[in-house]
Amino acid sequence: MTRVTVLAGGVGGARFTRGLLQQLASDDERIAANDPFGGPERALAGTSAHAGTAGEVTVIVNTGDDMWLDGLRICPDLDTVMYTLGGGISEEQGWGRPDESRRTSAEIAAYGRGWSWFTLGDLDLATHIVRTDLLRGGATLSAATEFLCRRWKPGARLLPMSDQFVETHVRLAADADEHRAGDLIHFEEWWVRYRAGQPVTEFVQVGLADAVAAPGVIDAILSADLVILPPSNPVVSVGTILSIPGIREALRATTARVVGISPIISGAAVRGMADTCLTTIGVETSALAVGLHYGSRQRDGVLDAWLVDETDADAVPALEAAGIRSTAVPLWMSDVAATAQIAAEALRIAADLTAAAHPATHDLPIAEFAFPGPLRDQLVAAILDGSKTSTTSTLIEYGIEDEPLPVIGSRQVVIDSAGRPVAIIETTGMRVVRLGAVDLDHARAEGEGYDSVAAWRVGHESFWHSDDMRAYLGDPAFTVTDDTEVVLERLRLIEVLPRA
Amino acid sequence: MTRVTVLAGGVGGARFTRGLLQQLASDDERIAANDPFGGPERALAGTSAHAGTAGEVTVIVNTGDDMWLDGLRICPDLDTVMYTLGGGISEEQGWGRPDESRRTSAEIAAYGRGWSWFTLGDLDLATHIVRTDLLRGGATLSAATEFLCRRWKPGARLLPMSDQFVETHVRLAADADEHRAGDLIHFEEWWVRYRAGQPVTEFVQVGLADAVAAPGVIDAILSADLVILPPSNPVVSVGTILSIPGIREALRATTARVVGISPIISGAAVRGMADTCLTTIGVETSALAVGLHYGSRQRDGVLDAWLVDETDADAVPALEAAGIRSTAVPLWMSDVAATAQIAAEALRIAADLTAAAHPATHDLPIAEFAFPGPLRDQLVAAILDGSKTSTTSTLIEYGIEDEPLPVIGSRQVVIDSAGRPVAIIETTGMRVVRLGAVDLDHARAEGEGYDSVAAWRVGHESFWHSDDMRAYLGDPAFTVTDDTEVVLERLRLIEVLPRA
Repeated sequence: MTRVTVLAGGVGGARFTRGLLQQLASDDERIAANDPFGGPERALAGTSAHAGTAGEVTVIVNTGDDMWLDGLRICPDLDTVMYTLGGGISEEQGWGRPDESRRTSAEIAAYGRGWSWFTLGDLDLATHIVRTDLLRGGATLSAATEFLCRRWKPGARLLPMSDQFVETHVRLAADADEHRAGDLIHFEEWWVRYRAGQPVTEFVQVGLADAVAAPGVIDAILSADLVILPPSNPVVSVGTILSIPGIREALRATTARVVGISPIISGAAVRGMADTCLTTIGVETSALAVGLHYGSRQRDGVLDAWLVDETDADAVPALEAAGIRSTAVPLWMSDVAATAQIAAEALRIAADLTAAAHPATHDLPIAEFAFPGPLRDQLVAAILDGSKTSTTSTLIEYGIEDEPLPVIGSRQVVIDSAGRPVAIIETTGMRVVRLGAVDLDHARAEGEGYDSVAAWRVGHESFWHSDDMRAYLGDPAFTVTDDTEVVLERLRLIEVLPRA
Repeated sequence: MTRVTVLAGGVGGARFTRGLLQQLASDDERIAANDPFGGPERALAGTSAHAGTAGEVTVIVNTGDDMWLDGLRICPDLDTVMYTLGGGISEEQGWGRPDESRRTSAEIAAYGRGWSWFTLGDLDLATHIVRTDLLRGGATLSAATEFLCRRWKPGARLLPMSDQFVETHVRLAADADEHRAGDLIHFEEWWVRYRAGQPVTEFVQVGLADAVAAPGVIDAILSADLVILPPSNPVVSVGTILSIPGIREALRATTARVVGISPIISGAAVRGMADTCLTTIGVETSALAVGLHYGSRQRDGVLDAWLVDETDADAVPALEAAGIRSTAVPLWMSDVAATAQIAAEALRIAADLTAAAHPATHDLPIAEFAFPGPLRDQLVAAILDGSKTSTTSTLIEYGIEDEPLPVIGSRQVVIDSAGRPVAIIETTGMRVVRLGAVDLDHARAEGEGYDSVAAWRVGHESFWHSDDMRAYLGDPAFTVTDDTEVVLERLRLIEVLPRA
């Protein structure tokens, strides 16, 4: 299973993640339906090899736009991600719930409270009430988010960047209504009330001094296979997440690949008012400039790769020269399918980077044990600690895809459930025998703890008789007998590969 | 102005108070339009003499039904009173707002939160959100209530019984759903979920030990002219208010009359499930038993008078024998007009009690100076301190109602703006002269600080030429001249009456 961690703001991050989940799910379907053991081609294709059971996605969400409104804790980005992934989003708006009414807000306004330019929908309000109730009861924002997600089942783990309240403010460059030049106002007021139309001199993260990354955030970056910076605002969404102590450092330290997707296409923000934010921090509104702003992990930045839109292809050489692997592909998230395709490109470029990082394994065929998941994890662990020195397949499996039988002395790369190369093994023996003739020595050498042939047989029959195997073989009634021909392979561990 | 203080629960107290305000307002209109000087009949009638400018009504509201729900502070009785008096009540329900929707509550339920048997309307929700926001910001419940009332303008001052949270719980006599016999559950759960249908052994005010009366509550009772116990639940509404330290004592100490209106008619609760509550505390469900439960202030109770329904007339002798003045009148609050009539009866019985308390003044005619309000307050003060020994009227005023001219040696009772007898005066001189012939000695003796006839004349002309006076005389152009005949009376203070 591929562990993907996304650092997301609101609409852009949410929509990208929805496409990512769709891509991983369709990869999973493909594997389950057609390709349980796969071959080298599949492994090298990257994406699908990494998907396993739809992958495990963690979204670290910007909470810098959060605020108290009428005594309720509003978390715009968390809610946008949760609603988008959970099927509760207003597709038209990109945020909030569909079929909204605003009766309660109108009443609050009748009391002279609230902000006239920030209205809460009646349906959406329930989320804020429940979250606030949980927070007031002592729950962390992480725990409250997890609770809310129990209803929406977003299909990904949502983590706020921090459990502390870090609220982005902007410093006004000029007077605006009741505010004076130099005043700090809440980001949401600037964004929603002024549509980012008032010039600002800086962004200030109020509360940052007391903030640490929420539980799981650093680990989700360090233990990921792939970290994605989706097309979110690089300043007030991803930039805010990166400002939390430890997060940038984790991005630089992780063994995962870090792939970004440009939120700027042809010199304009895909959505929102990122251009104003970029201008404020002195960065040009271009795919190139934003990529260079994030920077290469080979220097002091956070990116391994940066996807730019096909219209920005001329930025690729400069990005590559700066140590950032780059490719130009269509980046318009016009629908979920198009977005899934962008996610596929991100997965692909990550796989390419991984493969490129392992030149020693580059030409070796792939050895996959069982299906990605707990069983493979167990088998791979046994290979790595040297306890597994045999393996068994039915002969018929080799016929399905005209795969050659193992050759003594040949080497293969063992990949784990995430598709990562973890070891090199060598075939030291090969026999084709009747299943009934398997001996205790072979069974014990499987490294699965079998101390009798009968126990070994039960374990293997449950695998061979599984729905997945029968589907793969195209035989819903496939059953082994004592007479079934099996390939008994002996192997030895040549090298444990360093983690990428 | 009559100061009336009402100790109210929800629907019954709210509807009664609405009728009371209507009665005071109509009294006020009558006085302003037709009867600025009045006569003894009017003063003895009680109600109208007490109304002044619509009276000043304070409602001390039960907050024992309050609770936290979804992190919001719900105050059912305060809101029922506020909405009822402010025109925002659902007449059909008696509580809550009309034209409600419940979209937010349904969403909260979708998160698995809230109580399925207690649903908040979307419009009503705004009140709870704003109140909770104020409370969380450090406001007292009194201050939050005052803020909410700025919108609803209930026409009366609403005070919670306490700023501390005192929540009525009931102890269950038997198992009920997830509860066991002996468990304490919140009153609202018993009332709304079980419709008071589960037997209970006692009512417990959780939080009472730390509660004191809210600011203004004790003073509103002590400084009132009349305290009313409206037809609210005697156990869990009025009873809860009386449980707050100092309130019962204030009711016993006040110089105001304390008049109750029976919530029981013909042995049944007018509304709600008061019978179950009465049974729990061992009181029979009858107008007589509830009156005796409150008790007479002449013994150790809180009532001076108790209105029972005309169908309960046979209870009157026993109540009177127990030291409670009682009368049987129609008590069904079928509409606002009928309710106003009940309030009129309460005002009337209070006036009768006041008159009865002053036997020395009982047969004397009333002397009213100017209209109730600041001018009368000033003139009465001047009489009480002995500085006012003359007064002036136009002769035509006496003709309007065939009032006899003052007789030297006769005595009258001076009443204040609230209609309370405050002094006995004696007429020591009387002349009818041309206005132009008024002398400095008479002007000075008015006790209004005039040091010249001209200044005295300006002051009096502004009164005689006022809209009220012209309306009273039926002459929109009424104007005094030097030739207008005026009655110059001299008087002396015989006795300052003790406050009732």
